[in-house]
Parts: sequence; C-alpha cells; structure tokens
Amino acid sequence: MKEQLCFGVDIGGTNTSIGLVNRQGDILTEEVIPTHREQDASSYLPRLFRKMEEMGKKFQADYELAGIGIGAPNANYYRGTVENPPNLNWGKVVEVREIVGEHFGIPCALTNDANAAAIGEMTFGAAKGMKDFIVVTLGTGLGSGIVVNGKLVYGHDGFAGELGHTIVNVNGRQCGCGNKGCLETYVSATGIKRTIFKLLADYISDSELRNLSFEDLDAKMITEAAIRGDKIALEAFEYTGRILGMKLAEAIAITSPEAIFLFGGLANAKDLLFQPTLLHMEKFLLPIFKNKVKLQLSGLQDKNAAVLGASALIWNELAR
Amino acid sequence: MKEQLCFGVDIGGTNTSIGLVNRQGDILTEEVIPTHREQDASSYLPRLFRKMEEMGKKFQADYELAGIGIGAPNANYYRGTVENPPNLNWGKVVEVREIVGEHFGIPCALTNDANAAAIGEMTFGAAKGMKDFIVVTLGTGLGSGIVVNGKLVYGHDGFAGELGHTIVNVNGRQCGCGNKGCLETYVSATGIKRTIFKLLADYISDSELRNLSFEDLDAKMITEAAIRGDKIALEAFEYTGRILGMKLAEAIAITSPEAIFLFGGLANAKDLLFQPTLLHMEKFLLPIFKNKVKLQLSGLQDKNAAVLGASALIWNELAR
Repeated sequence: MKEQLCFGVDIGGTNTSIGLVNRQGDILTEEVIPTHREQDASSYLPRLFRKMEEMGKKFQADYELAGIGIGAPNANYYRGTVENPPNLNWGKVVEVREIVGEHFGIPCALTNDANAAAIGEMTFGAAKGMKDFIVVTLGTGLGSGIVVNGKLVYGHDGFAGELGHTIVNVNGRQCGCGNKGCLETYVSATGIKRTIFKLLADYISDSELRNLSFEDLDAKMITEAAIRGDKIALEAFEYTGRILGMKLAEAIAITSPEAIFLFGGLANAKDLLFQPTLLHMEKFLLPIFKNKVKLQLSGLQDKNAAVLGASALIWNELAR
Repeated sequence: MKEQLCFGVDIGGTNTSIGLVNRQGDILTEEVIPTHREQDASSYLPRLFRKMEEMGKKFQADYELAGIGIGAPNANYYRGTVENPPNLNWGKVVEVREIVGEHFGIPCALTNDANAAAIGEMTFGAAKGMKDFIVVTLGTGLGSGIVVNGKLVYGHDGFAGELGHTIVNVNGRQCGCGNKGCLETYVSATGIKRTIFKLLADYISDSELRNLSFEDLDAKMITEAAIRGDKIALEAFEYTGRILGMKLAEAIAITSPEAIFLFGGLANAKDLLFQPTLLHMEKFLLPIFKNKVKLQLSGLQDKNAAVLGASALIWNELAR
C-alpha cells in the first residue's frame, strides 16, 4: 500500500500556503500563491485547484492522497463553509468543503486558522497527549483554539474560541468587529503597535520608535527596540503581558487547561512577553488554579503550523 | 426487577438537602439537616449517613438504591474530593467519594453545586437534548456549569467553570477569593446588595432601601422594591444586567453555547434582570453570534435543582 499524504491549505488574507504532509507531520513540499483578497471565491478556487493538482501530480506515483484540510478565516467546521470572512471578498457563504471535495473526490475538512493551529499542536506539537489546553495565535489579530476533553471546542454553531473578542475595557480601543476594547486590539501585532503609539503620547521619554509612522512600525521592530533597552518598547511589552495575563486567567477559570501555548510573531519576543504575562496570569488566578497551568511557546513556532494543523484535521478524522 | 433510586445530596454552607430521586427526576422524598459549617467532616459525615440510612430504609423494600450523587462546594469530580471549601471547616482535602462509597457499598460521584445544576438541567430540565449550553447559578455567589459537546467541562484538574471569578474591573470590588472585581462581587444576591449600597452613596434620590442596613437587606427586597418602581432598585438591576450581559457575551465567544440558563433567587426577578442582561449581551456579541443564543430561566427553577442535579450525576454514569 502506498503511503498516504494530506494537503494542508492555509488561506490567509495575503497569501495561501499549500503543503503536502505525511502522517508524521513532515511537510514534503510547500508552495505559496497570492490570495488576491479582492477576488471572489469563484476566481480564487480554480487558481488554488490548479496549484494543488500540479503539486499532487509530482507525488501521485509514490503516494496516495488521503484528504484536504483547510484553515481559513471565519471557516465553519460543521457546515464546511467560509462565512463573511473579514479580509476576503468572498461574500456571505461559500460552500468550500463541498466544492473542494467534489473537485478532488477525496475528503475535505475546514476550520479557522487558530483552531487548525490547536489541532496541529495536539497532533504534531507540544500538546501531544494533552486533553485540555488552549492555543493563542498572535498575528495581525488574536485567535484561539480551545481543546476540552481531547476535542476542539466548536460550540453550538461552530464558531467557538474567539478569545480575541472578549473585552478588556468597554470604553477601550475600537475593534474591527464593531465593539470596543476587545482583547485583540491590545494583544496582537497590531495591538502592540497601538500600545506603542499610546505610550509615545503618554510619556516624554526618548525612544527610537518616535521616528516611525504607524504604517512603518511592526511588531518585530518593537521587539528589537525592547531588546536594545528602549523604555517605551519595554513598557509596551509589560502593558501587553498584563492584559494578556489577566484574560488568560479568565480563560483558565472557564476551561481549566493543563497548558496554554502562545504562537506567532509576537511570541518570538519570548521572555519580553512571557514574563509579564505569566506574572499577571498567576496574580489573577483563583487559588485553586495557581502554579498549575503551564504557559509555553508553541511546539510548532518554527514550522508552518497552519499548514500542519490544516492537514491534521484530516489525519484526525481518518484516525477515528 | 425493583425500580432504581438515587440519592441526590446538596451540601450547602447552612443546610444539606437529601433527596431520593427516580430515573424520571421525581423526588420521592426529601429531608434537610443542618450542615453546621463549624464542624469538621468526621463529625458531619456520620450525621449525614444516619439520615440517609433512615430515608433509605423506608424505600428499600420496594426500590433498589443505585448510587449517591453529591453536590458540594469545591468538590473535585475527578478526585472525588472536597478541597478547601470556602464555607465549611473541612480543611484541605476530604476523600468524600471514597468514604461515602465504602460506607454504603454503592457508586458515589460528586461535583460542585453549579456543575450539578448543569447536569440536572441537561437530564431533567430545559437543556434536554442540547449539547452546548451554560447554566449560571445566582446565589450568595455566582456559579457556572459549562457543557460542551454533551459533556460537562471539568478541565484538566476538575475545577473548570468558574465564571464567577472572571474579572469585571481589576480595581473593583474586593472578592472572597483574594482578587478584586470578580463577576460574582457584582452579579449575585450579595453583588446586587453591594450595588444598592453603591447607588445609595452615588445618588440622592429617595428610596425605601435607605431604611435598611446591609445585613438586613436581601435580594428579594430589592426585587420587590424594583417592582414597586423604586429608582435605586431599578437602577441596580440595570447595572447588574449590564455587567452580566457583557460577561455572558465573553463566555459565548469562548464556548459558543446554544443557550444560557439562569438559575437561583436573583433569576426570579425575571424581566427586571433578563431584559438588561439580554440587551447588553447582544450589544457585546461578535456579529457571528448575534441573535442566536437563547437566554432562559432554568427549567428547574421551582424544583430542587441541586438535589436533582446531584442525582443526575449517577443516572448519567449508569447510562453510559
């Protein structure tokens, strides 16, 4: 019997990554196509299919294609749809699972990118063997995948796990979702940029970041400035960790996980972010939870977690 | 074969209720003994056992005793223990499941009172057939039982579901848990009393509640004053509902339930509490969750939900 491979597809607002992944979590090949967010799905999907077919052809002599796992914004696992994605011009509902499944004639499953990251962490990463954990992805926004009893929490309608839209301050920062003060407006690559601008307004201390426009600044520059001892940048990490720690303490009170994994660019700041986060998380925890919950870097931090996680969706379904 | 009955035992800080419950959720008999919170468990449990034996004897000719379900503060479902209960002088760890099981020679299971209420709601109440829902119990404190995928969320160490200790305001009201600004310091029978006293301080309007001491005031008086149109009492419900609505919106973002059930004395205020809660819950929900989640009174509101829920612990285990 031929060895099986799965496609893992990560549809982002800018690029789409496509990998062919084996059961051990090795990505045998990976390619990237532009998503072209202004295109509708009927223009995008044929482009995706052509690339996948081209990749599949190279491997079909030696491998069997077992399925296609897809991570996408506002993907609904139950319905197999992408619904009103905030960064794509796809409209109300696209029946992605059905369209992809029919085209390739193999199983297809999809979920949002943070859920895919959690499934990847459980299948190939640092959460192997854990039954209760949370993965927090820190990118442009803040996503989360919550695992309870060994299963991802999808909830009644398939959209559970939106930690990024719990509220830090009802009169706080404007969020793209329409509310104010959502966690992701503070804790994400964009959130820490906003914090830098707030701090530059609040304080008079010198900072190398005073020379940058909002558009030019990114989270990596903030991390580098903090490493060089820039006070504003250091305070921004303190501020970010304080808020993240408090909201993680709340998430722990609700689902009592064994560990929380941070993933994404901002998590690369390591101790700069982890130290204040852990400090404030412990401070806000109920006594019964104190000093019990691990806060760790994702085990897939240096890998393409989204592609691995998307493929793991299928590996998990085949394993049932 | 004889019909089976289970004991449902609800251990509260003041009283312990003991019921004999059949598989349909009828309480055939119910008795109450004082808990005497100053006693340790080795004095309390023999008193409990004598009462249970006395009750059991009347039914043993016609029924078979199938098990004993117990709801207790800080009960750990996994370990079968009660650990550092805040309102009982029981000390660090009491192995309740083992002690009770050995004494009676039938299965025993225990969990905290809010989790028992959620299991009761699922087995005998308004959540029958639902797979994802939350029960919020509004008593002296605020408890919650969260069901995901048809199973209660216990989490890694068995203490999940502490919505009452998520944080409304980091600089807010002192909580018995050691933190500040926990949800239950605002939303509970005690919380609304505290709100009345805050409002009496903030405003100069007349109120019948100005004649009462903190010790004399209770949630029922506040409800009655609000029904009579007392402005301070009405504002207190508005304030309570605003905070509860916001925190329920957060819980929905995390677990995406089909419905949230409110249970307990404060829930008897009906629209006074439900209207502002629903309004603010919807306001703070992400668009993908709006107008989808039911907010309802518990289906066990007029019954002894704690006793039914405790017995349901055993019925559910027998049904597996």
